[in-house]
Amino acid sequence: MSATDAMTLGRLLADAPNRWSHWGADDEVGALNYLTAEEVKRGMATVRDGRTFTLGVPIATHEGDAVFPGRWPAKHFMVADKAGFENGHWHPLPGGLEFADDYVTGFAQAGTHCDALGHMWFDDTLWNGFAASSTNGGMTKAGIMPIAERGIVGRGVLLDIARFRGKPALDRAETFTHHDLMECARAQAVEILPRSILLIRTGWVGALAAGRESIGENYWEPGLTFSLDLVRWFDEMQIPSLVTDTLANETTYEPGSGLMLVLHAALMRNLGVVFTEMASLDVLAADCAADRRYEGFYCASPAKVSKGTGGSANPVFIK
Amino acid sequence: MSATDAMTLGRLLADAPNRWSHWGADDEVGALNYLTAEEVKRGMATVRDGRTFTLGVPIATHEGDAVFPGRWPAKHFMVADKAGFENGHWHPLPGGLEFADDYVTGFAQAGTHCDALGHMWFDDTLWNGFAASSTNGGMTKAGIMPIAERGIVGRGVLLDIARFRGKPALDRAETFTHHDLMECARAQAVEILPRSILLIRTGWVGALAAGRESIGENYWEPGLTFSLDLVRWFDEMQIPSLVTDTLANETTYEPGSGLMLVLHAALMRNLGVVFTEMASLDVLAADCAADRRYEGFYCASPAKVSKGTGGSANPVFIK
Amino acid sequence: MSATDAMTLGRLLADAPNRWSHWGADDEVGALNYLTAEEVKRGMATVRDGRTFTLGVPIATHEGDAVFPGRWPAKHFMVADKAGFENGHWHPLPGGLEFADDYVTGFAQAGTHCDALGHMWFDDTLWNGFAASSTNGGMTKAGIMPIAERGIVGRGVLLDIARFRGKPALDRAETFTHHDLMECARAQAVEILPRSILLIRTGWVGALAAGRESIGENYWEPGLTFSLDLVRWFDEMQIPSLVTDTLANETTYEPGSGLMLVLHAALMRNLGVVFTEMASLDVLAADCAADRRYEGFYCASPAKVSKGTGGSANPVFIK
Amino acid sequence: MSATDAMTLGRLLADAPNRWSHWGADDEVGALNYLTAEEVKRGMATVRDGRTFTLGVPIATHEGDAVFPGRWPAKHFMVADKAGFENGHWHPLPGGLEFADDYVTGFAQAGTHCDALGHMWFDDTLWNGFAASSTNGGMTKAGIMPIAERGIVGRGVLLDIARFRGKPALDRAETFTHHDLMECARAQAVEILPRSILLIRTGWVGALAAGRESIGENYWEPGLTFSLDLVRWFDEMQIPSLVTDTLANETTYEPGSGLMLVLHAALMRNLGVVFTEMASLDVLAADCAADRRYEGFYCASPAKVSKGTGGSANPVFIK
Repeated sequence: MSATDAMTLGRLLADAPNRWSHWGADDEVGALNYLTAEEVKRGMATVRDGRTFTLGVPIATHEGDAVFPGRWPAKHFMVADKAGFENGHWHPLPGGLEFADDYVTGFAQAGTHCDALGHMWFDDTLWNGFAASSTNGGMTKAGIMPIAERGIVGRGVLLDIARFRGKPALDRAETFTHHDLMECARAQAVEILPRSILLIRTGWVGALAAGRESIGENYWEPGLTFSLDLVRWFDEMQIPSLVTDTLANETTYEPGSGLMLVLHAALMRNLGVVFTEMASLDVLAADCAADRRYEGFYCASPAKVSKGTGGSANPVFIK
Repeated sequence: MSATDAMTLGRLLADAPNRWSHWGADDEVGALNYLTAEEVKRGMATVRDGRTFTLGVPIATHEGDAVFPGRWPAKHFMVADKAGFENGHWHPLPGGLEFADDYVTGFAQAGTHCDALGHMWFDDTLWNGFAASSTNGGMTKAGIMPIAERGIVGRGVLLDIARFRGKPALDRAETFTHHDLMECARAQAVEILPRSILLIRTGWVGALAAGRESIGENYWEPGLTFSLDLVRWFDEMQIPSLVTDTLANETTYEPGSGLMLVLHAALMRNLGVVFTEMASLDVLAADCAADRRYEGFYCASPAKVSKGTGGSANPVFIK
Repeated sequence: MSATDAMTLGRLLADAPNRWSHWGADDEVGALNYLTAEEVKRGMATVRDGRTFTLGVPIATHEGDAVFPGRWPAKHFMVADKAGFENGHWHPLPGGLEFADDYVTGFAQAGTHCDALGHMWFDDTLWNGFAASSTNGGMTKAGIMPIAERGIVGRGVLLDIARFRGKPALDRAETFTHHDLMECARAQAVEILPRSILLIRTGWVGALAAGRESIGENYWEPGLTFSLDLVRWFDEMQIPSLVTDTLANETTYEPGSGLMLVLHAALMRNLGVVFTEMASLDVLAADCAADRRYEGFYCASPAKVSKGTGGSANPVFIK
Repeated sequence: MSATDAMTLGRLLADAPNRWSHWGADDEVGALNYLTAEEVKRGMATVRDGRTFTLGVPIATHEGDAVFPGRWPAKHFMVADKAGFENGHWHPLPGGLEFADDYVTGFAQAGTHCDALGHMWFDDTLWNGFAASSTNGGMTKAGIMPIAERGIVGRGVLLDIARFRGKPALDRAETFTHHDLMECARAQAVEILPRSILLIRTGWVGALAAGRESIGENYWEPGLTFSLDLVRWFDEMQIPSLVTDTLANETTYEPGSGLMLVLHAALMRNLGVVFTEMASLDVLAADCAADRRYEGFYCASPAKVSKGTGGSANPVFIK
């Protein structure tokens, strides 16, 4: 699984589209610029009965959350509870109130989260040409703050690739392309419009939570796989944000080249597409399969983590 | 500031309304039950031009976030950055991608957040009659999970008490009542409808952030102050959720009795009203003052912290 | 590996020695009372050339430290470094000093550490009869503080069981008894005196660090195994402290009964023997094998963690 | 309190002694090289009756530990306790053992601790000429590991400046020099020998713990103050390590120049003297005043924090 010596992301993406400077030299939200107030209203126009779904996965679970290799699960600690009052660590407030309080530690990109555009880079340059050294000691460019300040609101389309392929979940390393997305949409009788927020379900996060898949050596997620055509399609469709139920939104390695996380380079760093990873899509997907409606109002607002590389989010989808 | 010996919350609230069992013995979301799908659509119906505001405060700031006395500020740590790659701690992925990654530690109720209904109690009993011992080692009843699973979505009304009183921010320990809220609404030409989510602006969080107020000994926030009438009004109006720009959503001590955080007992524990605290309302308020429209679509979805007493949120308000 | 239904620690240890109340109803340091000033000097009297060894394992390593199942590795984060100064997060002090600063999170019992006597219990009762509820929200009895205040200083004897059995490390689940300790001492030509601090080397921590052993499902450490005679021997020998290079100082399960961590009950809870776990003994052992001297001055002083169940330590051994 | 524009540490220390390369280009322990095995035995030779003192301050206290401005106190969290078992979060081990477990977060330099030689620098260069960029993302040169591996063991001399000046504690910003140290030693009838580890008591940490002093704006510790003569004296006396009961081992600002923490530059960075800060010396000092013996065996072994800038320690002093 080592990359061809000669092949680098710089060479691979030499002819791929790039939106640096498109929204000005200071832009830090990239393709979210496509999500105008008009798109917010277009998203609301899809709502029929007001049923609401939240797409965040639980964090700091007792068993340990699924996380991308190299990270470690978020943790939850009680600071105050009833037993702590009984043992003399805490005293009731005047009048008699007692309280439970707790602490959470985890990666800024714990659980369901949005990546900042500067989260990954190559050739020492982030989204929009910012220097990689701007990440040192905390993001001073293209961090999560401008994205969290703006929110990600518009029309969402769920593409249930797993169901489309007749499986509970895609297999390890299984891939698909934008052509598959279009066929899936056709089968679901939903239209991928320009500026739609794409929610792609592989069943993977559910399979991890259920223990049917696990994270170990040679971890290789299913997901979208790179082609120049795919990148051009995202660019032409002006896709503002990509949401999946995998840990990294794309297949881990490119099958041919062995390059890793190529779409983080092609879509995030070069086009400014905002990635939301580890979404919980199974309940929503079951509902969509039942009523045959795969579009809705999508609203995500990651945590405003100062200088953060990402922010946890619990996106809302309303049908 | 010590409570009258004879006065306790139990006595004070003996005749106050209580909604335990109203939504079943297992209910953990309380007044959010008022937010039906119908209310979600009612919220959307208020939207005119699709302009979006996010109401979270930044967390893990370099200066240290404002937190209620007894808590401590959230912290942000870089795990990987460009300099770490240069110093040999990290190696580029196959193809050349590098990454920034980071870690956040903080209270589950860090920054803008929703309280779980079991966060505070008296007489050893939480919301809906759950035992206080259910908080031990992690919330097993009335934690934040059911609220985070559901989301808080509906029609929001901003009540700008500070502007109504002609001040940039209320003073330390300054109070107001539901009558003030109604007068403020009248002055703003907005209607508080049954089941409206109330957003109350005091200017306080902005004053803390700007250093005009500070947290020290004898800290005493401005805010709503208890009366039986006020509790009855919240109950009759079926207010599902109370959002303010103070650290604890109410004046810290009751002026007469010295009792502390009485509305946490009267509204949260007894009625199941969900509190969202430390919201950033100044930008939204300036916009509302400019266009004279104080209602909108409100959507909050706190983090799904397993067993948590609360969850951080970055609420979205759309006009 | 499930325990016999009928067998419990209470029954198993019904006739085993117990030192509760021996040093008074308030005692929290147990067998460390054997380490009088006289024993400190006896330890020093063993020193010949002043060569010094430190027995702590590295913590917060990049690869992740070995920890007992259910815990997770300590983590290290930079707060300030040169690159952070260059990126504007920090400013030089008057005169020009810059600084690196960092943060560590981990279990109180991270890396090499001493257990508090109240760390484990059965029948709702800790060492010396303290109630198990005294652990709630933080140790109020038999925590690490009194041990850390006193220190563990005396004559140390290294018993290199691995070398004695001619192996680099004991095998998974391999056991030995106090008779083996005595034979090993004889072979090493060192005497186990009353009140000696016992350092037992199995080679296990080194094997974990080298990747020759790993922590996974069905983890089962080699180590001492329970018998009534062994407990009596520890009691009669007045062993103040047991130090090993395994994660839990004893074989994980009793071979016959399947009971878990029986010596934590028999030696720690009942006799007040202080356990130091995860020591790094390989370098010391090589030196002892070279000069055939297995005794020395031992000095450990765990961190003074308020209300802690344990404290990390970097014990010193001087020959 | 701003530095003279023209004055920098580089100019101030242009003629001061410097021990870079003295112990080789790779040396990371500096003046600890003076602590030979001979010095270890010399330290032991001072011991008369074996009485033992531990010099660490408690960490993660409920009230919040004293820390240098810019840091924040260590925190302690229970992970498991009896109440957590009762509430179903944990289950007894086979046989019936239950356990308390806990987590600690804090600066590597929390509580009583040793600084790594690379902790502070100027002119982009650490101890021994290592590049400041070697601190990026974790210490790769002159971190705490080599010091923790070696330990700090030898003859300790307590110099009780506070008692010498007839005060419970020195005043804010009060200074003293090496001449004062020598006079104090004379008054105490103890000799400062070459290679002695110096423990200097100001009473400050005790005053902070008792609330008689506090950390706020314009914090200014008492302590040693810079002169070229003082630096030469430390060099000629081959002082390996400086231990004090202040947060930073020296007066915060140089009275004349306003330069900050000059001895960190002159002694730590240039001479390789290892600093141990925030020691608890009051109990030891009272004992020394009582028996008029101010020397003893000193043994400190900081935590082996990988890549750390420092490590917590609980030094032992034996008389």
